[in-house]
Amino acid sequence: MQNTDQLLAAFENYLGQTELPAEPQLLYAPIGYSLAGGGKRIRPMLLLLAAGLFSDDIAAALPAAAAVEVFHNFTLLHDDIMDNAAVRRGKPSVYARWGRNVAILSGDAMMISSYRLLSAVPPARLPQVLAVFNDMALEVCEGQQYDMDFESKPKVSVVEYMHMIELKTSALLAGPTVIGALLGGASEEECRKLRRFAVELGLAFQLQDDLLDSYGDERLGKAIGGDILEGKQTYLMVTAMSRSDEADREVLRSTYRDAALTDAEKIARVKALYDRLDVPRLTEQQIRIRFDRALSVLDTLAVDPARKAPLRAFAESLVGRTK
Amino acid sequence: MQNTDQLLAAFENYLGQTELPAEPQLLYAPIGYSLAGGGKRIRPMLLLLAAGLFSDDIAAALPAAAAVEVFHNFTLLHDDIMDNAAVRRGKPSVYARWGRNVAILSGDAMMISSYRLLSAVPPARLPQVLAVFNDMALEVCEGQQYDMDFESKPKVSVVEYMHMIELKTSALLAGPTVIGALLGGASEEECRKLRRFAVELGLAFQLQDDLLDSYGDERLGKAIGGDILEGKQTYLMVTAMSRSDEADREVLRSTYRDAALTDAEKIARVKALYDRLDVPRLTEQQIRIRFDRALSVLDTLAVDPARKAPLRAFAESLVGRTK
Repeated sequence: MQNTDQLLAAFENYLGQTELPAEPQLLYAPIGYSLAGGGKRIRPMLLLLAAGLFSDDIAAALPAAAAVEVFHNFTLLHDDIMDNAAVRRGKPSVYARWGRNVAILSGDAMMISSYRLLSAVPPARLPQVLAVFNDMALEVCEGQQYDMDFESKPKVSVVEYMHMIELKTSALLAGPTVIGALLGGASEEECRKLRRFAVELGLAFQLQDDLLDSYGDERLGKAIGGDILEGKQTYLMVTAMSRSDEADREVLRSTYRDAALTDAEKIARVKALYDRLDVPRLTEQQIRIRFDRALSVLDTLAVDPARKAPLRAFAESLVGRTK
Repeated sequence: MQNTDQLLAAFENYLGQTELPAEPQLLYAPIGYSLAGGGKRIRPMLLLLAAGLFSDDIAAALPAAAAVEVFHNFTLLHDDIMDNAAVRRGKPSVYARWGRNVAILSGDAMMISSYRLLSAVPPARLPQVLAVFNDMALEVCEGQQYDMDFESKPKVSVVEYMHMIELKTSALLAGPTVIGALLGGASEEECRKLRRFAVELGLAFQLQDDLLDSYGDERLGKAIGGDILEGKQTYLMVTAMSRSDEADREVLRSTYRDAALTDAEKIARVKALYDRLDVPRLTEQQIRIRFDRALSVLDTLAVDPARKAPLRAFAESLVGRTK
């Protein structure tokens, strides 16, 4: 059994050895740039840790781990075009550096590359693994579309928001977790439980991300209040709206309308409203509920607790930053 | 054994039964719009006709036939963004009708849908079929990138041009043909021959497309001279450049520079140069050479000639419009 650091090292080593063609340069250079940009490798790690619950043969799971990481990075490439995002992980996005057409086509090639990596899973497992991967990929697109729909939707309910992030965020954790389990040799029932675990973990993770964007620690290197300034639908915003009266909504509208306000003033006004409506506490509570559900499902899995410890610790490392 | 019309009817029936989810509407409606837009169904027909060389079980090949058609339409969705193309098959392109972001994301979902369709091939064949599909998909992206590179390249050689269309056009005929052969139960050697057949057919097909754009019949519904006005690199242009002297090149440069010329005058001047350099005849010759090679390879295939007749006739229907 390998620990988390060893798995990450094995993954980075495998990904580093995956050579890209040199030509056409404008197709492949952005892919290398994107994959070298780091990130937390959350999805491949979940895949390897899930495989490790049932098997010590991690090598067999590495191509699929690379596939989900490449797919995740593909979604970032295209999302950055759609969101007009100039910066990704502190560096210029592919879109900003090479332009729209290169980001579209390199993204396409990246998605195809993820399928090529996936095709290296043991043939006996391929049909199942491919089906899970396809479902995941389509769910992520659906989530992204709902997220874009929300930009022009006058009112988004909490239920609609949770549905969107279950597609956009949770699917991209659940897919890798189930694929890892399948490659480790898990039963259908075990896969079902691990999917539930990852979906709840993903919801907790996204809600925490929403909370940190407005209430996080500036020392973490992220500017505070970006979501508020963009007028983005987040768990905080949809929760506030669900608890607001007409006067509250007028405060919001006037805040966004008032061109004389500085960014800092806008953020302060919206956060004052959130605080008054008890939104931060309700968000923390929801994060805790979802995370506890994830761990409870993991507890019911009939696997040696020592084997579960690394996955459990990894989940805790993802959703623990608000405490 | 089924004839070509029966295969096409079976394909349209299968594709028509493939239901798309209703929501999110902006993700799936453009996919339905694109697939209902018709087109010649060249790629699925090649797949079914190739399968029919070796097997009468066409039903087993229908999901893969749908996969290649959906993939082809995905490439059109993204190409239309990159080319700023407002019209596709006489209707507004998805890009023009719904905008850039919808075309990007629906295109992504379409590519994933093509893999989902592909995953329905018999499990024993899946690893091989998936590998061929992945190679095809990546080659098409490479071809599209080279094509875009050509826009800013001062001189494109005939060899570079042929390499580009082998990737961009031929790959999307060769992939389906080989997948059809595999599903029909062809040997490795037979697949290799059918790949060669389809690559040469694709080259002939693209060169004919280039020729018709400048010398076609307006009654076919296509405006004449679009490639010339765009200053696009085509077989005609790269051949002309390979045979031109400095005076010829100055004629070209001054034609494109002269803002006082009408479109019709520009087209007439460039065509006069093509004619003087014998470009149309050389292009027709090259089409004939490539097409004859395709048929010769087909002749060497040890399959009952009666079984080969529909594929041969289909190839002739694709490359016969200049005669």
